[in-house]
Amino acid sequence: MTTDIATRELREPIDVVEYLYRRLYEVGVRSVHGLPGDYNLVALDSLPKCGLKWVGNCNELNAGYAADGYARVNGISALITTFGVGELSALNAIAGAYSEFVPIVHIVGQPSTKSQRDGMLLHHTLGNGDFNVFANMSAGISCAMAKLNDPHEAPTLIDNAIRECWIRSRPVYITLPTDVAVKKVEGARLKTPLDLSFPPNDPEREDYVVDVVLKYLHAAKNPVILVDACAIRHRVLDEVHDFVVASGLPTFVAPMGKGAVDESHENYGGVYAGDGSNAGVREQVESSDLILSIGAIKSDFNTAGFTYRIGQLNTIDFHSNYVRVRYSEYPNTNMKGVLRKIIQKMNKLTPSPSPSVSNQLPDSEKDSSEEKITHSWLWPSVGQWLKPNDVVITETGTANFGIWETRFPKGVTAISQVLWGSIGYSVGSCQGAALAAKELGNHRTILFVGDGSFQLTAQEVSTMIKHKLNPIIFVICNEGYEIERHIHGWSADYNEIQPWSFKDIPVTYGATEEEYKGYQVKTREELTALFADETFSSAPCLQLVELHMPRGDAPLALKMTATAAASRNKE
Amino acid sequence: MTTDIATRELREPIDVVEYLYRRLYEVGVRSVHGLPGDYNLVALDSLPKCGLKWVGNCNELNAGYAADGYARVNGISALITTFGVGELSALNAIAGAYSEFVPIVHIVGQPSTKSQRDGMLLHHTLGNGDFNVFANMSAGISCAMAKLNDPHEAPTLIDNAIRECWIRSRPVYITLPTDVAVKKVEGARLKTPLDLSFPPNDPEREDYVVDVVLKYLHAAKNPVILVDACAIRHRVLDEVHDFVVASGLPTFVAPMGKGAVDESHENYGGVYAGDGSNAGVREQVESSDLILSIGAIKSDFNTAGFTYRIGQLNTIDFHSNYVRVRYSEYPNTNMKGVLRKIIQKMNKLTPSPSPSVSNQLPDSEKDSSEEKITHSWLWPSVGQWLKPNDVVITETGTANFGIWETRFPKGVTAISQVLWGSIGYSVGSCQGAALAAKELGNHRTILFVGDGSFQLTAQEVSTMIKHKLNPIIFVICNEGYEIERHIHGWSADYNEIQPWSFKDIPVTYGATEEEYKGYQVKTREELTALFADETFSSAPCLQLVELHMPRGDAPLALKMTATAAASRNKE
Repeated sequence: MTTDIATRELREPIDVVEYLYRRLYEVGVRSVHGLPGDYNLVALDSLPKCGLKWVGNCNELNAGYAADGYARVNGISALITTFGVGELSALNAIAGAYSEFVPIVHIVGQPSTKSQRDGMLLHHTLGNGDFNVFANMSAGISCAMAKLNDPHEAPTLIDNAIRECWIRSRPVYITLPTDVAVKKVEGARLKTPLDLSFPPNDPEREDYVVDVVLKYLHAAKNPVILVDACAIRHRVLDEVHDFVVASGLPTFVAPMGKGAVDESHENYGGVYAGDGSNAGVREQVESSDLILSIGAIKSDFNTAGFTYRIGQLNTIDFHSNYVRVRYSEYPNTNMKGVLRKIIQKMNKLTPSPSPSVSNQLPDSEKDSSEEKITHSWLWPSVGQWLKPNDVVITETGTANFGIWETRFPKGVTAISQVLWGSIGYSVGSCQGAALAAKELGNHRTILFVGDGSFQLTAQEVSTMIKHKLNPIIFVICNEGYEIERHIHGWSADYNEIQPWSFKDIPVTYGATEEEYKGYQVKTREELTALFADETFSSAPCLQLVELHMPRGDAPLALKMTATAAASRNKE
Repeated sequence: MTTDIATRELREPIDVVEYLYRRLYEVGVRSVHGLPGDYNLVALDSLPKCGLKWVGNCNELNAGYAADGYARVNGISALITTFGVGELSALNAIAGAYSEFVPIVHIVGQPSTKSQRDGMLLHHTLGNGDFNVFANMSAGISCAMAKLNDPHEAPTLIDNAIRECWIRSRPVYITLPTDVAVKKVEGARLKTPLDLSFPPNDPEREDYVVDVVLKYLHAAKNPVILVDACAIRHRVLDEVHDFVVASGLPTFVAPMGKGAVDESHENYGGVYAGDGSNAGVREQVESSDLILSIGAIKSDFNTAGFTYRIGQLNTIDFHSNYVRVRYSEYPNTNMKGVLRKIIQKMNKLTPSPSPSVSNQLPDSEKDSSEEKITHSWLWPSVGQWLKPNDVVITETGTANFGIWETRFPKGVTAISQVLWGSIGYSVGSCQGAALAAKELGNHRTILFVGDGSFQLTAQEVSTMIKHKLNPIIFVICNEGYEIERHIHGWSADYNEIQPWSFKDIPVTYGATEEEYKGYQVKTREELTALFADETFSSAPCLQLVELHMPRGDAPLALKMTATAAASRNKE
């Protein structure tokens, strides 16, 4: 039951919803994704006065994907949906964010506490008077829940939820009943900023771990660094960068770690993914006597089908909540402090040279008479075209395997859902990422998405137009779900799609000639010319490129991973 | 753990997935909705040989909506998704089907039982080795769960799930691991058809209830019949029809009961929804001394904001699992048998005349100089244009309130999500409904959807094109979420949408000139002419009509319901 706080007891009375929004602003949110619904409309009124922009997506799944993309660029994001219908549509996106450690504050507008208490037969319910069933569905994919049923406890619950979201880098779920949203709470609390710092390690424990690591590091003959997704998600990229530079060690990334390190740095040696590694990488990593593995997520798609061949006796694993040296585990030890201290205390090392990794075409693709755009030609060519600080999004499928073959310029942010792998994700994510990139200084945002995946979430291009975002969208047109063809059903109807005129779609979403330009590219020559076009490359407006590629072609790493997945399905 | 059944022990060995499909075919499923994903690909191979067509939707939420629409026309439907990403995207649709009593068999392709047992870090997982978390999320919105982990028990679980789905008219959830799908089970079981009959009432109890009902019925001076959604969902329309005809009583429907009775019948008196009723209806229903209420769902939107004024002392409620006479409850009593026996045993009645209900324009709309298409003009005009056996789908918003003002020809099926009210539902539902209507004999399928709602699920028009379906789609263009404007935010930005060129969209989805025709209609004269066009009305191909209507206009019942919702939100 909600109880009112007598406003006279409050020094600086403020609505619960405004308290929530001001905390979001404090942690860096500037735009809020979502859709209106009658249980959140009043709450939406307060966004502008708190400095927050309303995005207004086309549907809630897309909004969730967009919030995910926004968070990956901006650090954290917020999503507002309505009870039942809205929140459930977003669950796949929230589960993906949970799986991949992306911090989204999901706020659900609920019926008033009185309606809930009375068990009223309202729209957007199951008709059984149970108002908890949807919250329960979110519980398994949220790292904290805050049910704001009582204004007395609302500020504490809000502060705790946002802090958990940040620290644990995962979604949190906040319910906001219509009546509670506009109840008054103490605004003076906002003068004390949220404490978003990681709890420091116990110093004695930390020193002990650092000494153990250094003992192995100093004894190793050819150590290497392998950086993966959790280094990004748990915000140790500064420590990783300093470690890479100070140590001079050959540095590799797992596919999910793309963008975690400065790939223009001389130490950078390419992508390690077992049998799907860049040329020369597997040999060096697997012959190393010490792999310093930072933030690993050893999923099937991140390891080209579990083809890592690294012994645990040669491995030190750094994680957000533990460090493991060979088989010795050190729980409650955050890598952040450990890495910082290693940098400070390590001796000068004499590293082996890294393999040379570049965006040069492989020999097999140097035949200038070949016109078709193949994956082995495309991805190094993309690498030559990318610019520093680009945001590059690759959809699950040929694109997120292909990007392994691209060496990034400095400062590139890579977005891909390698573990969760929900097709359609990238289009929504692109909207959020492009908006965040614009807010942070107008970096280019570039999306590679397959024709099949694009169809799931196509309408979010409309939201990009509405907000005058300028991403460059490459739709890989190869007549269907190519990744699935490589797993099963090479010529099956179910892997076909209805053929769309992709480049004409933004016009039907209301884009004017100034706001949008579409292209169709079928040959290497055409794409090379487009990449060389400075106007195109300057991203002056939304651009969509139909990239026609032969059906059946796929990056080598995808073929291997797909074969492994198919045989595992039969076990 | 799965164990093999020695094939030699089986008289007619058959794959688990084929057993499942043959049962689906047996209960009337002919087309299966869904999307391919690597955990269901092998299962999809077996569809054609079981006589099932694969729809292949654009995304899983749309597929779920389509399965819902297909079930409402066909009686039951099936949906296949993939583990995690696919199934979660469909949850909103499944929850809607649960809420509104629509039977969908939801089949989820899962990783192999060995991969699950080993807790492998696979794509489409949360990365925590928990393979039950998604099934748990579906548990609260499914009336039965069948986890096919062991072929020994698979046939029994399948039979039970499909039976529960049919009898309880709600979704069921079936998991199908990749390895179990192709394990052999006894096909000879299929020779025994599923028992889909409702368990009969205890005869003594049934007779008792019938006598009580008849006592009140025969004593009543001006009894009326009020039919609602559960009469449709729990399949008592034949009994209702016979009761209406045999009794001659004035018969009304609640909004969710639209289409449940023959509205061309002389007894039919219109829609009762409290203050939102058709003209003259409220007075007659609320002054009746006995309301025979069949299958009621008294939700806010179905009662124009809880404005029923019917005393329980004047009411007999018939439900699928109980009957209530005034305050006396008779549990475990299905209305089907009770109604049948009432028809047989009742005396001849002397009913009051029903109010006259027609599709004549109200006096206020007879001014022929008015050009704008308003709701009070539109819906009776639609009623004049509809044909017997049409399937009419109305989206949540102005359309599903407006349709209250339309008297249907005989045999019209009405589809609307009045209780769950998820915007975007109707476009997916239209695909499924149109497919089922085509399979059942090529009835016309007609959709009315708002411009805001259309944007959520627009791509499902592509699936209609792929399957050469011919619905007539009216997109009500009034610049945004009109229903929300009437609840809150009359001129708020968050109720605006990006303006689309709706009629050009199907062309970008690959529709040829033979497959599609688009229209833009801005005046009454233009719409009248279109309705009079026999080619248009014969639905020769997919057609989409932009129906431009003034922003701010809404059916009266919507305005009242919205006002009630807004004040409830403030309580």
